[in-house]
Amino acid sequence: MQNTILLTKEKVLRDPIHNYIYLQHQVIVDLINTREFQRLRRIKQLGTTNLTFHGAEHSRFTHSVGVYEITRRICDLFLRNYPSKSPNDGLWNDDERLVALCAALLHDLGHGAYSHTFEHIFKTNHEEMTVAIITNPETQINQVLKNVAPDFPEKVASVITKTYPNPQVVQMISSQIDADRMDYLLRDSYFTGANYGTFDLTRILRVMRPDSKGIIFDINGMHAVEDYIVSRFQMYQQVYFHPVSRAMEVILDHLLSRAHHLFEDGKLNDPLSQQFLHPFFNGTFTLQNYLALDDGILNTCFELWRNHDDPVLSNLATRFLDRQPFKSVKTSMETQALLPELRQLVTDAGFDPLYYTAVNDSFDLPYDVYNPRKDKKPTQIRLRQKDGSTAELSQESALVKAITGRQSGDERFFFPKEMLAQNQNLDIFMPVYLEFAQHIKNDHIV
Amino acid sequence: MQNTILLTKEKVLRDPIHNYIYLQHQVIVDLINTREFQRLRRIKQLGTTNLTFHGAEHSRFTHSVGVYEITRRICDLFLRNYPSKSPNDGLWNDDERLVALCAALLHDLGHGAYSHTFEHIFKTNHEEMTVAIITNPETQINQVLKNVAPDFPEKVASVITKTYPNPQVVQMISSQIDADRMDYLLRDSYFTGANYGTFDLTRILRVMRPDSKGIIFDINGMHAVEDYIVSRFQMYQQVYFHPVSRAMEVILDHLLSRAHHLFEDGKLNDPLSQQFLHPFFNGTFTLQNYLALDDGILNTCFELWRNHDDPVLSNLATRFLDRQPFKSVKTSMETQALLPELRQLVTDAGFDPLYYTAVNDSFDLPYDVYNPRKDKKPTQIRLRQKDGSTAELSQESALVKAITGRQSGDERFFFPKEMLAQNQNLDIFMPVYLEFAQHIKNDHIV
Amino acid sequence: MQNTILLTKEKVLRDPIHNYIYLQHQVIVDLINTREFQRLRRIKQLGTTNLTFHGAEHSRFTHSVGVYEITRRICDLFLRNYPSKSPNDGLWNDDERLVALCAALLHDLGHGAYSHTFEHIFKTNHEEMTVAIITNPETQINQVLKNVAPDFPEKVASVITKTYPNPQVVQMISSQIDADRMDYLLRDSYFTGANYGTFDLTRILRVMRPDSKGIIFDINGMHAVEDYIVSRFQMYQQVYFHPVSRAMEVILDHLLSRAHHLFEDGKLNDPLSQQFLHPFFNGTFTLQNYLALDDGILNTCFELWRNHDDPVLSNLATRFLDRQPFKSVKTSMETQALLPELRQLVTDAGFDPLYYTAVNDSFDLPYDVYNPRKDKKPTQIRLRQKDGSTAELSQESALVKAITGRQSGDERFFFPKEMLAQNQNLDIFMPVYLEFAQHIKNDHIV
Amino acid sequence: MQNTILLTKEKVLRDPIHNYIYLQHQVIVDLINTREFQRLRRIKQLGTTNLTFHGAEHSRFTHSVGVYEITRRICDLFLRNYPSKSPNDGLWNDDERLVALCAALLHDLGHGAYSHTFEHIFKTNHEEMTVAIITNPETQINQVLKNVAPDFPEKVASVITKTYPNPQVVQMISSQIDADRMDYLLRDSYFTGANYGTFDLTRILRVMRPDSKGIIFDINGMHAVEDYIVSRFQMYQQVYFHPVSRAMEVILDHLLSRAHHLFEDGKLNDPLSQQFLHPFFNGTFTLQNYLALDDGILNTCFELWRNHDDPVLSNLATRFLDRQPFKSVKTSMETQALLPELRQLVTDAGFDPLYYTAVNDSFDLPYDVYNPRKDKKPTQIRLRQKDGSTAELSQESALVKAITGRQSGDERFFFPKEMLAQNQNLDIFMPVYLEFAQHIKNDHIV
Repeated sequence: MQNTILLTKEKVLRDPIHNYIYLQHQVIVDLINTREFQRLRRIKQLGTTNLTFHGAEHSRFTHSVGVYEITRRICDLFLRNYPSKSPNDGLWNDDERLVALCAALLHDLGHGAYSHTFEHIFKTNHEEMTVAIITNPETQINQVLKNVAPDFPEKVASVITKTYPNPQVVQMISSQIDADRMDYLLRDSYFTGANYGTFDLTRILRVMRPDSKGIIFDINGMHAVEDYIVSRFQMYQQVYFHPVSRAMEVILDHLLSRAHHLFEDGKLNDPLSQQFLHPFFNGTFTLQNYLALDDGILNTCFELWRNHDDPVLSNLATRFLDRQPFKSVKTSMETQALLPELRQLVTDAGFDPLYYTAVNDSFDLPYDVYNPRKDKKPTQIRLRQKDGSTAELSQESALVKAITGRQSGDERFFFPKEMLAQNQNLDIFMPVYLEFAQHIKNDHIV
Repeated sequence: MQNTILLTKEKVLRDPIHNYIYLQHQVIVDLINTREFQRLRRIKQLGTTNLTFHGAEHSRFTHSVGVYEITRRICDLFLRNYPSKSPNDGLWNDDERLVALCAALLHDLGHGAYSHTFEHIFKTNHEEMTVAIITNPETQINQVLKNVAPDFPEKVASVITKTYPNPQVVQMISSQIDADRMDYLLRDSYFTGANYGTFDLTRILRVMRPDSKGIIFDINGMHAVEDYIVSRFQMYQQVYFHPVSRAMEVILDHLLSRAHHLFEDGKLNDPLSQQFLHPFFNGTFTLQNYLALDDGILNTCFELWRNHDDPVLSNLATRFLDRQPFKSVKTSMETQALLPELRQLVTDAGFDPLYYTAVNDSFDLPYDVYNPRKDKKPTQIRLRQKDGSTAELSQESALVKAITGRQSGDERFFFPKEMLAQNQNLDIFMPVYLEFAQHIKNDHIV
Repeated sequence: MQNTILLTKEKVLRDPIHNYIYLQHQVIVDLINTREFQRLRRIKQLGTTNLTFHGAEHSRFTHSVGVYEITRRICDLFLRNYPSKSPNDGLWNDDERLVALCAALLHDLGHGAYSHTFEHIFKTNHEEMTVAIITNPETQINQVLKNVAPDFPEKVASVITKTYPNPQVVQMISSQIDADRMDYLLRDSYFTGANYGTFDLTRILRVMRPDSKGIIFDINGMHAVEDYIVSRFQMYQQVYFHPVSRAMEVILDHLLSRAHHLFEDGKLNDPLSQQFLHPFFNGTFTLQNYLALDDGILNTCFELWRNHDDPVLSNLATRFLDRQPFKSVKTSMETQALLPELRQLVTDAGFDPLYYTAVNDSFDLPYDVYNPRKDKKPTQIRLRQKDGSTAELSQESALVKAITGRQSGDERFFFPKEMLAQNQNLDIFMPVYLEFAQHIKNDHIV
Repeated sequence: MQNTILLTKEKVLRDPIHNYIYLQHQVIVDLINTREFQRLRRIKQLGTTNLTFHGAEHSRFTHSVGVYEITRRICDLFLRNYPSKSPNDGLWNDDERLVALCAALLHDLGHGAYSHTFEHIFKTNHEEMTVAIITNPETQINQVLKNVAPDFPEKVASVITKTYPNPQVVQMISSQIDADRMDYLLRDSYFTGANYGTFDLTRILRVMRPDSKGIIFDINGMHAVEDYIVSRFQMYQQVYFHPVSRAMEVILDHLLSRAHHLFEDGKLNDPLSQQFLHPFFNGTFTLQNYLALDDGILNTCFELWRNHDDPVLSNLATRFLDRQPFKSVKTSMETQALLPELRQLVTDAGFDPLYYTAVNDSFDLPYDVYNPRKDKKPTQIRLRQKDGSTAELSQESALVKAITGRQSGDERFFFPKEMLAQNQNLDIFMPVYLEFAQHIKNDHIV
């Protein structure tokens, strides 16, 4: 395994979250230097969130090296405190280190420009793309990994798909409390300036331990784990589900949807759309097409579309680039019956409701959302008691129990802010606006 | 002045540096919502620095609202502690607040994509562009400002050009210790993760006071001012003058320079370059051309150029997008005579030295660099002693004095890292590389 | 009101929590300079907690000026945003500022050395002592306050006793979310190094507003209030109820109790005990006796008692000064029946169970504990919706609801760590220890 | 070496500076649990500084465990990166770890109550006392150390006295940039709330390396070392040399001096002074006498002295306990001639100048002051260049050079603040005060 040799002198990257990120293997340095990995610098970690929290302009690149660093620290602690002495003793075999580090570094490699919205419109899947980039022999990533061993790319990919046999490695990268989530909570909290995402990373790492089922936590670290869960809950409530970010997401979704519609009508023929987006509209895209995209290229398309003949496309592009979010109110089972009436009022005011309204519940939202619907089956967080027996977290923590059963999001109805216009006495739509406003009270439909 | 009315309820923006940014005037909200101001979200504050310090992905938007916020706090403190009672008493007249706030918010409005390099190649000037955007009747910015008063755009512009009559307002925005510099030191320190740029902002604001010459500082705050100067010095040494960022800047400069050359030969004809860059290459650009650009659009051009027929353009675009910096070593008066020989060796190895080498001293560099050569004449930092008399900072502070007279940068020679290749025994250029390497020792040319 | 004049130049104290504390009235400076207030420097804020979290050595002095500062900020925000225009309009009358500031500064003035344990043994009450110090004409505090107005001491005291007519002032100092609690959570978190007590103070202050019932919070700040409640919960779980701190508290309690017993037997006759403690043992103490005590004087008594003839007194003094905590395990309804047996084993091993065991539930504990039993009646946290109507916090927040109904503490049985001795094969009590150990499993009695 | 075994599970202490302190050897735990080490909890790290910066109430205990932790991290990095392979290869022999850790933990053990002032009055020496405690067979410290090896106490003591043969171990604990100084700068900065003492500890530790002369620093870490030196300079200017702390130090010095005088006259006969202080006044003190003292016991003496018959003793005790600092102004060579006149005015106003005035230059001051006079000979900070050659720090760093040659302190004349009384028209000494005031301008004597 030629490339597994340690660097003679470790390299460091300065990082605001972890202070330094320590690169100790040549293969890690080589992976970072690939074209596919550098592309992550041009994709924002939080999509449209920076339009609400202006500091959140950090890229998937910074998050990826952060996940690598946490994984590296876990390996160090496992090697020091729980080294395997015989096969299947449930302890840590440090031969697993390199596959764990590579999977950590590369776990988000397949994210595309404005990832979740893009996936929604074009039916792509970032996890599948990650696997494709790792295993496709044309990528620089694949070539670097193959230098380690011919089957190494597939091994790394199998960690991403959770089919890798060692559950410790899989759970480091992907579980209820993994290096991925721990990094993004700390990082998103730091860059947004929200104070909610902080928790005691050092303490959690110290109480993690490998066992035959994967990773378990010493019970004396229960409060640190609890604090992490609460922080995650609060970040979703405060940051990831923020109505304004979702409103910008809705505009982006409708903008791409409108572009798709125009493409089908043969009306989206600028050279940039042709080169970069047509392969996705007509379903013929290749891995190279996918890797050619980033946030800046989509924004460049939108800049061109500002001047498109289609007024809806032009208007939505302008709204997106100049940050003119839709307004929204909460909906509920009781008030759903009123939505047709509200949509009709939006239509009466001159807006096509297909592109100018939306109902969006926060579980459909971007940013690796913690979705209660999907998380029924995942690995539970297990606590190890002094005598070696196991308890499940929500049985021990009242706070976690309170959150566990709940859907934390909300469902909102989005519409143009013009519907709430106030001082436009001469506006011919004013009666429509006034009728619309009567249905809004305390952020709810009534 | 219709738009100077206070908002009935102030709005806040969450900011990692100042915690919250308080918006209290409708005109400030309206300025932020203009197309020209939103464009600043798509221009990085530190150009290529994020390629060295990966956290430094913050935009000019975040910095601009930060400068506004510091200015707002200064106005509040001046109003509270030093309100003018009669004209020309040298104290603070709060009628100046709005012009100060607007100038603070808009002071960087004219920065272009990869600002300093772009200016270098295309002979543009961001300060002139700022004035143009403020005063040109076609911009949304101008329209918002004109709502305050017909001559208000010109008043704001005159603060930018330092011709505004009130020196307090001018020095708030532009002096040795102004809202601009204080924000960017704190902000760049935070996002890079370097710890050098911190100082006690609250303390400095407390000891600032207006006088007839502008702004002076109570002598009992001297150590806080001193700490700010030292922090600035350290940030330039550690961050702004970092050799790798400068190496990427060199590549960007050479890439645009090569594109210019190809344009003149009629060989740069892709539709994106035509639309966005030709007006700059042929010197016919309008304000709208200028405002249409951002970092993402330039990057999109570079993506297209990866596949250009010209091998130099294609190679430099790839080096820039995939982050393949040049190497560099320090030069000096003594070793300048060796540069022709080194350039010849680079040529011998197959690289055109015009595009693959550079000599760059850090004073030519981007990012509002504190340049000792230019700063001979600027407003000194004045300290107010207990009896009302004035002292100059460097006379009181040994640390500041030590820095004052010194040029803090260095001069470096940049070249392709291939010149230092080591393990390529079969490379036909190996003898050239070995000869080249003999001239490098301890980061100097010998 | 001679002393209500503002200082010509405000003074500042450097504070690690609030950065600076701003002193703006002469009376506040004078109060801080009194003998009774300076005494708070010699009383630790957290009693025995520094024996678990070694950083927690901060005094009641630092907390008191912190509560003052938060109150000052609330007054500033109320004055700016909600100034009263007519009597009884439910808004803020800034004539209340000085009484609020003084009450905030002085609210803990009556705390004694090792406050809660001392109160337990000697039946004193720190709130009554605070009122006594404020209203007794012999104190410097009283004299300073009387300079404001003859009835000013009584006004300040009535805020402490919650009989002051303005509920806004009372709730600033004493309610579920007041300046006192907000300061101690932030401060104790900072000095212990626990990361749990942080929350967004600036945000909470911004959403506070006065109304006719006291203080209410804008509903859009609900998550910040929720975060504060969760932080408080976590600090109690992690810091204030820590078993080792409680074990040291038990030793202190038993030490003073033994001293009391010896006093009654006429066997506590050293001159220091005579001068400082006898008035408390025989119930004749004066305010001057009370104010003469501080942590250092009690520790000095304990130093003398190290060499006392009574072996229990001597041993407990040594255990306290040299930090030799008791061990403890959780008890429950089911295991209470086993306590007599455990106490008998402790007796068999040679320890008087009266002084060497204890059952302690965390609600009996020190540090202004949030006690669910007492907090049935207090002011609820009220949220103000957009249309002006009111909601109660726990109805809006799932997290708060989860905590509201629960007793968060535990009940523990304390005993000498010698009972768990392991390697003392020659110890004649080893059979007793072994039998004892069989009753302990996973931190519970079995 | 029975006690050198590692703990089966490492223990941690929560620390606000280092997050956690990791205890890995039984002997370290045992040392912390001794009576002599626990006594450090009752001695403030910064003597009277908390009377200026109220947060600075931390004890020598917290600093001592911090120095241990930094030393532990250095050992870990040395073992990992520079392990010795043969004797005298100048690399790190991990057999030195335990002696380094113990010396780090115990280096301040001999500090007494209000250490520097006490030393000044009673001619004690904390370094000698540290050695005595370590080597005296009656101490618990000595017994724990002897369990490691019979000569282990002397080995540890020889590190303190710098006679230990391995210069790496000595320089870790005591050099221009050692674990001691690095911990106290960070810690004092944190607890005072001053922001000046911060630097990049992680970076400095990473560039430290052992060599045959002791410890050297990689040149690429030069800026981090420079920043540490500047931070130290600023902490001395801003915190350690603060005039108000020095004024309280002067009062303490004069108070103990007056007590000494009364003792010699047979007038200091309270039982506490007899027991705790007489052995020092008459020069017969034992190690046990020394260890019996702490800050609280001295304060208790002062409380008793408040009511002493001697008016000077009583007054100075009150000034100290109630924090009534002397005022001060800068003196210089030119103005020294005026001091007799000023002292005479102080005498005329009724104060004994022996006890109510002082001239104090900051180099005589407490807190392990960096004293240019003494530091002529110490180990320089050496930088290691890429080719292995050595440079000295001040030759490479302009900032350090600027500080190196300078005496950073000042000399001040202290006097009662009554001398500056202003509104006391009826005071019979008013003419004296006015004359005195004429000599004071801009913080200088004129």
